[in-house]
Amino acid sequence: SALRLRLSGLCFLLQILNILLFAAFVRYSPESSPGQCPPQLNCSQRNQDSRFQQPRFQDVHIQVLLSFGLLLAFLGRYGPGSAAICILIVAFAIQWAVLIQGIFYFFLNGKIYVGAQSMVSADFCTAAVLISTGAVLGRVNPVQMLLLALLEVTLCTLNEYILLRLMGVSDSGRSLTVHTFGAYFGLMVSRVLYQPHKDKRKREERQDVRHQADVFAVVGTLYLWIFWPSFTSATTVHKNAENWAVLNTYFSLVASTVATFILSPVLYEESTPRMVQIQDATLAGMAVMGMAGEMLVTPFGALIAGFLVGLISPLGFRFFTPVLHSRLKIQDTCGVHNIHGLPGILGALLGTLLTLLATADTYGDRLELVFPLVAQGSRTVTDQAFIQLGALPLTLLLATLGGSLTG
Amino acid sequence: SALRLRLSGLCFLLQILNILLFAAFVRYSPESSPGQCPPQLNCSQRNQDSRFQQPRFQDVHIQVLLSFGLLLAFLGRYGPGSAAICILIVAFAIQWAVLIQGIFYFFLNGKIYVGAQSMVSADFCTAAVLISTGAVLGRVNPVQMLLLALLEVTLCTLNEYILLRLMGVSDSGRSLTVHTFGAYFGLMVSRVLYQPHKDKRKREERQDVRHQADVFAVVGTLYLWIFWPSFTSATTVHKNAENWAVLNTYFSLVASTVATFILSPVLYEESTPRMVQIQDATLAGMAVMGMAGEMLVTPFGALIAGFLVGLISPLGFRFFTPVLHSRLKIQDTCGVHNIHGLPGILGALLGTLLTLLATADTYGDRLELVFPLVAQGSRTVTDQAFIQLGALPLTLLLATLGGSLTG
Amino acid sequence: SALRLRLSGLCFLLQILNILLFAAFVRYSPESSPGQCPPQLNCSQRNQDSRFQQPRFQDVHIQVLLSFGLLLAFLGRYGPGSAAICILIVAFAIQWAVLIQGIFYFFLNGKIYVGAQSMVSADFCTAAVLISTGAVLGRVNPVQMLLLALLEVTLCTLNEYILLRLMGVSDSGRSLTVHTFGAYFGLMVSRVLYQPHKDKRKREERQDVRHQADVFAVVGTLYLWIFWPSFTSATTVHKNAENWAVLNTYFSLVASTVATFILSPVLYEESTPRMVQIQDATLAGMAVMGMAGEMLVTPFGALIAGFLVGLISPLGFRFFTPVLHSRLKIQDTCGVHNIHGLPGILGALLGTLLTLLATADTYGDRLELVFPLVAQGSRTVTDQAFIQLGALPLTLLLATLGGSLTG
Repeated sequence: SALRLRLSGLCFLLQILNILLFAAFVRYSPESSPGQCPPQLNCSQRNQDSRFQQPRFQDVHIQVLLSFGLLLAFLGRYGPGSAAICILIVAFAIQWAVLIQGIFYFFLNGKIYVGAQSMVSADFCTAAVLISTGAVLGRVNPVQMLLLALLEVTLCTLNEYILLRLMGVSDSGRSLTVHTFGAYFGLMVSRVLYQPHKDKRKREERQDVRHQADVFAVVGTLYLWIFWPSFTSATTVHKNAENWAVLNTYFSLVASTVATFILSPVLYEESTPRMVQIQDATLAGMAVMGMAGEMLVTPFGALIAGFLVGLISPLGFRFFTPVLHSRLKIQDTCGVHNIHGLPGILGALLGTLLTLLATADTYGDRLELVFPLVAQGSRTVTDQAFIQLGALPLTLLLATLGGSLTG
Repeated sequence: SALRLRLSGLCFLLQILNILLFAAFVRYSPESSPGQCPPQLNCSQRNQDSRFQQPRFQDVHIQVLLSFGLLLAFLGRYGPGSAAICILIVAFAIQWAVLIQGIFYFFLNGKIYVGAQSMVSADFCTAAVLISTGAVLGRVNPVQMLLLALLEVTLCTLNEYILLRLMGVSDSGRSLTVHTFGAYFGLMVSRVLYQPHKDKRKREERQDVRHQADVFAVVGTLYLWIFWPSFTSATTVHKNAENWAVLNTYFSLVASTVATFILSPVLYEESTPRMVQIQDATLAGMAVMGMAGEMLVTPFGALIAGFLVGLISPLGFRFFTPVLHSRLKIQDTCGVHNIHGLPGILGALLGTLLTLLATADTYGDRLELVFPLVAQGSRTVTDQAFIQLGALPLTLLLATLGGSLTG
Repeated sequence: SALRLRLSGLCFLLQILNILLFAAFVRYSPESSPGQCPPQLNCSQRNQDSRFQQPRFQDVHIQVLLSFGLLLAFLGRYGPGSAAICILIVAFAIQWAVLIQGIFYFFLNGKIYVGAQSMVSADFCTAAVLISTGAVLGRVNPVQMLLLALLEVTLCTLNEYILLRLMGVSDSGRSLTVHTFGAYFGLMVSRVLYQPHKDKRKREERQDVRHQADVFAVVGTLYLWIFWPSFTSATTVHKNAENWAVLNTYFSLVASTVATFILSPVLYEESTPRMVQIQDATLAGMAVMGMAGEMLVTPFGALIAGFLVGLISPLGFRFFTPVLHSRLKIQDTCGVHNIHGLPGILGALLGTLLTLLATADTYGDRLELVFPLVAQGSRTVTDQAFIQLGALPLTLLLATLGGSLTG
């Protein structure tokens, strides 16, 4: 009862705070009404400088809901009991991310100018928060989750700003900034909040919702297949590069799904994998294509990457998660380490490798779109690859530090 | 058994009637093959005169299914038993609305010329019918529902024609013509058909489907988040105005969702709200942005409006619905008064206020898109506000009269 | 257990085979990076020659998942137990279809050049495989299903190549190449694998999942209403023809839905049809519009076609399926003959009739889009109609031969 009122009060305070901050700082971007763009904002210039580009607005209404794919995925694994809390996290994190991202990217003359792009960026951030939530689901109360969202949005934006804007890393599908950051942030929070006795009760509860969870797993898997490939390419709107990113993502998830059917009969006693395992394979196959999606120039590369990650993810569940639990005292409710963490790291390594192999010959006109700094001549391919690689430990460091602090 | 055959016979008659009327009157619009437009139809002229504009066709296949979001919402509250009837209502109402709307808007030389726009208009009408259905669900047999649809489509189109075409009211997201009209029409039908003894049985049945209803509520809420904001802006295709309408709707529903988490722990004994309550908040947050969505020029306005309506809607369920039932003898199965009626009225009042505050400075180029008559100088802002306000009692009057008549 | 490992091994072999074949032959099409198109590929020329046209890429991510509508439909009828297997079939068949279709359509200098169009074509093929799967679901083990997919993709592509490319048949919504071919292929496999004792057990199992199946049927029906009309017009991207194909499909499925409400109270003891019956009517109403969708020039034609097929499909379930079972020893688990087979044949006959009636007057500019060879004067309307009609027995022949062979 005290918790009930505390949650109610915290929601009230945070919402009032959001409204006041929005009233003080946030305005609609004049970019969206082209006739009025003040010269200081450099409207046309800014779009070309940055990797961020105005997405076709009609697609935003779909792209914005990236997070809900994750939400459905967690419902498939954890059951509908947590749906209400997850939606609260999403509703709060989107507002907060619009504010924080606005300060980093869209701040001018004391005002934050928001537009369709802000919504898409905010939703990438919300997705990272939701991945972290997946690691601690069931062991953290709603009030703690709101505070986690509050802190993680800030750190996630900081990490994204350093990687994408300052270092010029190419990570259009967010292998690093969303999947890896979110997973390790959540795992560290889980480590700090370790409570051994909570585990057993949850497992029993989960058996009850097993039947219903299958429904969510089917719906979630279909949702991911249908919408995720276009999420992955949400920030790669240039016609050609997007094309390949979407196709690579499809090939990767197809191979990853088949891989699940190879391993799970061997690892478990079941003849066919359960729907949640297929869903996990789908997520892993997408996470690995996050950075490499627009860099791969041959379809079989995507097939191999998806196939390998589809083999690694069930192996992780079988052998690595128990080790994580018993040795490192990290509980991972929804297995985010195997679904987002490892595939994200593999995706980043693959991206680094592909950057090293990138030549003007194989990329053609696409070079300028995927690696603008290389195409302009201000960086060599090796420099870019080194920076891409360096982004990985930096993300891991920020995620673990942030997670410990939050915990 | 008699009812079974009567339903079967009525469906047969109505479908044959529809086919005959379509055969006699409905042709594909030459507008959709631009080379053939006869001069009498004034193809290019008409598009600029009216608030209706040819939507991008590729989006229509999504926009047309507005009604299904509502359908899923009602399944979340009432259970899947009524799904078949609701789909029948949708299937019949769409055909009938194409006919009736065609007579008002697309009639020429004894023929109705339909196109993608007809489908979108027809679906708005179907949505109003579905809202009314929500008020009487479980207490009216399918035959009565078909007759209700038959009458309401006609009256709803009349109301829409008077408001949008004759009075020049700006109501792009249909706060008035869909949400308010549909809700009060349904409530009046419910009043006339009041049967006190039917209530208890329903409540028990609903307990049975509680578990399954949660699945529908989760799926329905996600559907609304993903697709509704683009529905709200279906008729505001001008690039900039649409932009803000979608963003305003997102901000409104986010704030409304958080508001549910503030009130429901206080009003009920539960620590977190049930999914149907979150779904109701989502619907209310969208209904309030119907008229005001494209008028709001600051994001915090949408946050405040969504926040307030998110507080009012659960209060309505807790305190107003029992009063409605005991004093006014109106049973409201799915609570459409709190979800659509009140938010619609508040949205209309907010729209009036915003119209009063509209100046060429804040709106810029958008003035012509949102208030074409004001921009052309044929009306002052005060006149427009007065007309917007006047549309509210007119809609209420038509809805209550029509509902009583139908009942 | 032996089956488990055999499935695992077969998946492994097939996936490695796919990866090797992709590595050897498949490259991204230079068409998608226009600057690089080698002159031998005739990039611009080819697009105009063929009926295949580059779809707007932003829509492909939705169009690709055609198969999943079918998947949800079968879950509604059969239950979620088979979901995992169906997804495996989809994941394998898409890769295989990209290869096989690539050999027929996109082969040049020893390489297959894939792009967004390959994905859409591959998914049409996968849909045919899934329809066949629906006929044998529950009586065939996963290993057999994979082999079925392997063979059917090849034969389906051959059939499609003969019909669309060599004979110049107009079948944009694939009444023949997907619905009819898939249904009769599956029925023949089912005939050859006839095992009388397997039937009873299945029926009992299905009763258990009845409740859950309703959820899938509701979600599946909504999915079909929302996305299928745009699938049907996936390959008719010319602005005007698409327009009518989508509207015709909507009118057809609306009428077909109402027809279900007329017949099912008469045929069965229930007052309203079950959700799976409505879903079947939706599928049948779409299958009949496959070929005729872009040919119909009046909306009432679509209403009549949908109405008739909506009456025939439940009659088929009531009277024809038992005959099929007892006399012809064909078991049809999901009733694909009534949902896809018959409506597909009727659609082809309707298409032939409409081709006969096609004149330059009624079609105007659309003639060139729908019947390019007629518009160019190299064929008369009667020739075209004869060829359209001839495609029907050819498809049936290939489907039955292929099915027997596979069985």
